[in-house]
Amino acid sequence: MQRDYSVILGNLGNTRDRFCPGYKDNPDTMDMLKQAAAIPHVTGIELVGTWDIRPDNAKEMQQALVDLGLTCVSIIPDLFADRVYWKGSYSSREATVRRHAIDYTRQMCEIAGEMGCETINIWPGQDGYDYLLCADYEREREWFCEAVRELAEAYPSLRFALEYKPKEPRTHSYIARMADTLLMVQDTGLDNVGVCIDTGHAFVAGEVVGESIVLAHRAGNRLFHMHFNDNHAMWDDDMIVGTVHSVCFLETLYWLDRCAYKGWISMDQYPYREDAAESIGESILWLVRFDEILQANREEIDRLVAIGDAVETSRFLRKIFLGPTE
Amino acid sequence: MQRDYSVILGNLGNTRDRFCPGYKDNPDTMDMLKQAAAIPHVTGIELVGTWDIRPDNAKEMQQALVDLGLTCVSIIPDLFADRVYWKGSYSSREATVRRHAIDYTRQMCEIAGEMGCETINIWPGQDGYDYLLCADYEREREWFCEAVRELAEAYPSLRFALEYKPKEPRTHSYIARMADTLLMVQDTGLDNVGVCIDTGHAFVAGEVVGESIVLAHRAGNRLFHMHFNDNHAMWDDDMIVGTVHSVCFLETLYWLDRCAYKGWISMDQYPYREDAAESIGESILWLVRFDEILQANREEIDRLVAIGDAVETSRFLRKIFLGPTE
Amino acid sequence: MQRDYSVILGNLGNTRDRFCPGYKDNPDTMDMLKQAAAIPHVTGIELVGTWDIRPDNAKEMQQALVDLGLTCVSIIPDLFADRVYWKGSYSSREATVRRHAIDYTRQMCEIAGEMGCETINIWPGQDGYDYLLCADYEREREWFCEAVRELAEAYPSLRFALEYKPKEPRTHSYIARMADTLLMVQDTGLDNVGVCIDTGHAFVAGEVVGESIVLAHRAGNRLFHMHFNDNHAMWDDDMIVGTVHSVCFLETLYWLDRCAYKGWISMDQYPYREDAAESIGESILWLVRFDEILQANREEIDRLVAIGDAVETSRFLRKIFLGPTE
Amino acid sequence: MQRDYSVILGNLGNTRDRFCPGYKDNPDTMDMLKQAAAIPHVTGIELVGTWDIRPDNAKEMQQALVDLGLTCVSIIPDLFADRVYWKGSYSSREATVRRHAIDYTRQMCEIAGEMGCETINIWPGQDGYDYLLCADYEREREWFCEAVRELAEAYPSLRFALEYKPKEPRTHSYIARMADTLLMVQDTGLDNVGVCIDTGHAFVAGEVVGESIVLAHRAGNRLFHMHFNDNHAMWDDDMIVGTVHSVCFLETLYWLDRCAYKGWISMDQYPYREDAAESIGESILWLVRFDEILQANREEIDRLVAIGDAVETSRFLRKIFLGPTE
Repeated sequence: MQRDYSVILGNLGNTRDRFCPGYKDNPDTMDMLKQAAAIPHVTGIELVGTWDIRPDNAKEMQQALVDLGLTCVSIIPDLFADRVYWKGSYSSREATVRRHAIDYTRQMCEIAGEMGCETINIWPGQDGYDYLLCADYEREREWFCEAVRELAEAYPSLRFALEYKPKEPRTHSYIARMADTLLMVQDTGLDNVGVCIDTGHAFVAGEVVGESIVLAHRAGNRLFHMHFNDNHAMWDDDMIVGTVHSVCFLETLYWLDRCAYKGWISMDQYPYREDAAESIGESILWLVRFDEILQANREEIDRLVAIGDAVETSRFLRKIFLGPTE
Repeated sequence: MQRDYSVILGNLGNTRDRFCPGYKDNPDTMDMLKQAAAIPHVTGIELVGTWDIRPDNAKEMQQALVDLGLTCVSIIPDLFADRVYWKGSYSSREATVRRHAIDYTRQMCEIAGEMGCETINIWPGQDGYDYLLCADYEREREWFCEAVRELAEAYPSLRFALEYKPKEPRTHSYIARMADTLLMVQDTGLDNVGVCIDTGHAFVAGEVVGESIVLAHRAGNRLFHMHFNDNHAMWDDDMIVGTVHSVCFLETLYWLDRCAYKGWISMDQYPYREDAAESIGESILWLVRFDEILQANREEIDRLVAIGDAVETSRFLRKIFLGPTE
Repeated sequence: MQRDYSVILGNLGNTRDRFCPGYKDNPDTMDMLKQAAAIPHVTGIELVGTWDIRPDNAKEMQQALVDLGLTCVSIIPDLFADRVYWKGSYSSREATVRRHAIDYTRQMCEIAGEMGCETINIWPGQDGYDYLLCADYEREREWFCEAVRELAEAYPSLRFALEYKPKEPRTHSYIARMADTLLMVQDTGLDNVGVCIDTGHAFVAGEVVGESIVLAHRAGNRLFHMHFNDNHAMWDDDMIVGTVHSVCFLETLYWLDRCAYKGWISMDQYPYREDAAESIGESILWLVRFDEILQANREEIDRLVAIGDAVETSRFLRKIFLGPTE
Repeated sequence: MQRDYSVILGNLGNTRDRFCPGYKDNPDTMDMLKQAAAIPHVTGIELVGTWDIRPDNAKEMQQALVDLGLTCVSIIPDLFADRVYWKGSYSSREATVRRHAIDYTRQMCEIAGEMGCETINIWPGQDGYDYLLCADYEREREWFCEAVRELAEAYPSLRFALEYKPKEPRTHSYIARMADTLLMVQDTGLDNVGVCIDTGHAFVAGEVVGESIVLAHRAGNRLFHMHFNDNHAMWDDDMIVGTVHSVCFLETLYWLDRCAYKGWISMDQYPYREDAAESIGESILWLVRFDEILQANREEIDRLVAIGDAVETSRFLRKIFLGPTE
């Protein structure tokens, strides 16, 4: 299987949280781009709308990507950092905000078209609710659906990947888990709407990523994109792949192949206190090696998955990870 | 709105866990039935297959229900306590087990037909997996789907309610949350397959029940049944309604009405160390009173849900629960 | 029982998260102070070091507090927003950073002395670790202990309240739960070191606050301070008291009295998208009313706690919260 | 470092849960003992009171252990399966139950003395509470403390290891986490009272086991015993070591050495649907191999723990678990 690795450009920038406004300095965009291109195995880049890519810098960015030999994997419209969306973007109670969000996304779709970027990755972080008895789940979900439908109908040559996450920044997100995202995808009735799995978001949701991949496959090959990172399963810690979980990344790659995933293997981390390029590079090296192990043991894994014997699976994993025991 | 209250008969029996085989003595079935009928507001009963209802006692049970003025709300086939299903029922790797599970459920469907019971409540507790790299999520999910389709096609006058739960007894269930259950429902392609929400299962799944009700509504009125109980949100503690959560039960009733739910309000508790009939009675009284509050404040709640102002919602809830502050 | 209510001044300012740098505008400190003073029942204020209070504005602030009739309840040294502490303050691997943190805290202690403020509230948000095999738990914990001991010995007339929190901003905090904080308190060997419970932090830690109060009481009356807010129990959402939990706030007040707590009832919220003064005011009104209910039912609660019958407790709570059922 | 491996005898018996009374048949005790002795590396056995060991079979059991070359590592009094303890043992509201629990434990202490067994492992599963406002945390905790003190004073040559667990079978346990258990240990004022870490209980508690070991060390070398198993961190799944977590087991062994742990490495699993002896054998082989890796890399781990650089730690773990990447 060919694996194509990419990274979200902003991962290389400043990190902050609600307490500290900046753990690092904010580097220049072109410097970040060069750093990204220098990470081994990286051939693609994801750009966040407004921050990285705007009408005024699209040409310049495109030339820079060409110069560095990078493909623009996706554009991620900024529906989360702009204060106007503080109570939702496509599902905002205010019609003017919904219209603003749609029009802004259209602008990003235009740029994607110009740059030959095939995927719009929608992470609607502000669409959800915080308190009980404070949201009309029915009306707001329908508004969200209508917005995505309008966009995907208007840009049929683009693929819209909805990235789910159970919470943060809202206490509850509307696009929260694989299965509810697939229901939303179906509600749009369009073939160019699908799902992006962020492995860390899936862990927080209590999902086994391999099973989530199967759900998307059964729903008509709706897995459009993948973001990789690790965490302690309670929160979206956005850590280096492999530093907490290991088995499930191997299993994830296995099911990507079983379900004929053709998309990118993209890194999405938030290296608060770490060197960004090195952290991202580590994640890729873990995945490269998990992949090699998978290729070398695919038939054995097929067998283990078919028979369902925990002792045999344990024996296999132990041998793979720790080597033979004398 | 008319509310019809019922209870699962087994709630009145012995309780146990993996450590202690029995905290109580196991009462006689007919004694349990009389106790259930004596709980204020109870007019319906749910029966667990094999335990409460079998071909050999169906007539006797039906007469008892008539005598006590109880409706048989659902039959719950025992797909969880019989050791034969230890690694799955409809999704078992073994074809003979899958056939056994289907044939056994057919037997329960026959009894339901004879008793005029409209709903088969399927809780497939053993269908799932415990370890990673130990299950073929694709094949097993398809087997599950095929079994439900066969049953629902064979008994078109019955409604099949799939009761989801994220875990226990398996570490991961196939029918885990509202949205994945709706995907399974859709995969059967049948109108008489829907969902049962157990409020405690939904809490463990990290769901807001009101939003889950909306998901089922949007998927074509697929909410067929409701089980009520409370817990500390980490595990299926099966406690008295209202002793942990309060706002969300009020919100749940509100969304049941918004989504035109016509089914039963059934209690499903596990009173390990409490008097069973009194515990169940308490849950019903909480719900009766939440319902009265809802009826008296429906327009105000409509307004709060529409405007989404946490301070106003807080003010309302405070007044409702704690009375006016001087 | 006399209850004295206060608020952390910064609650009235801008809110932000790692995605959005500001949901609100940052008001002037003196305006925030006036807003705080105008919240019904508020008679005390907590000030964050550097942000609200510095050597250069201490006199002016003191005068403002006098003018508004407010008591300075605590000073909270800023050990979390200054980038210098990004990998820890008192437990930093770097001796110069530890010294800086101690000297800075001494400065705050001096100001507290001048202002007649009795409590230094230490929230060491950056002291912990993110990755496994990346911290020397023994050495770093000891450094933390030494710093607190030095400070508490140097300022024997001040009380040092250690505020625990299981995570955020680090994935794991050293001062994480009530019991480990009490062990740290003991290790200092000093009487003027104790604990601050933030109710939301305790929920995230899986604690029942009433039980945590008892632990502090048994360890020698070490509960020095209380911060109140509510959340969905997965994360420090810093919401309005009573909008998620209710029983446990009543129980918390009960155990504060049983354990003879004499400190402040202080609000610590983070009203991302709400009017700050109104949100804080709501929390106080919930607590005022919980307190009235407690006073009116103390003997009944004594009885319920003594007999441990869940049905009786349910009956009591139902009557209290929902009123009598016909 | 010498590692001594043992297993709890009952792990080899029937498994059940609250739904299914038995997934397996219950083998004969002596057959289980032979199976245990045949697991590679096993040289010790833990016996559950009443189930495995009683006054009437103590001599026979002792001879059997001698014949099989097994050491009796601990006796675990049955304070959890006997219905008399359904609302607590040492902390029961009823004085007669408390006395019964103490006298029964004394009987087990006598047997331990006769058999040369040094450790009584106390897992007080029923001591806790389920509902809020249903327990007197102060009085019940004190009763618990008094019982342990009486026992430990009466048998000064035995070591009493308190095994903590946050929940199950109660929704909240009194002996819940490492730090509160250490406070209880201190309250007894006795040197022969300490703690048993069950790694799975610690995961559910949100603990990093390495840090918990340090807490016990700082409190005066109070780590008396270790139970090993793995889980998905939400519940006590009692799975094969290494099938979910890996880094933390390596880190756990590292900190056991740093804190000079001299006790047993004992397996405590609950192989619901697996071959018991093989499951336990797998866990031991994972640990043996983790230990070899530790021995071969101790200086490197010392360095990583001292410098706290996540990228370097990731690089090390990747090399250890996945081998060199080309």
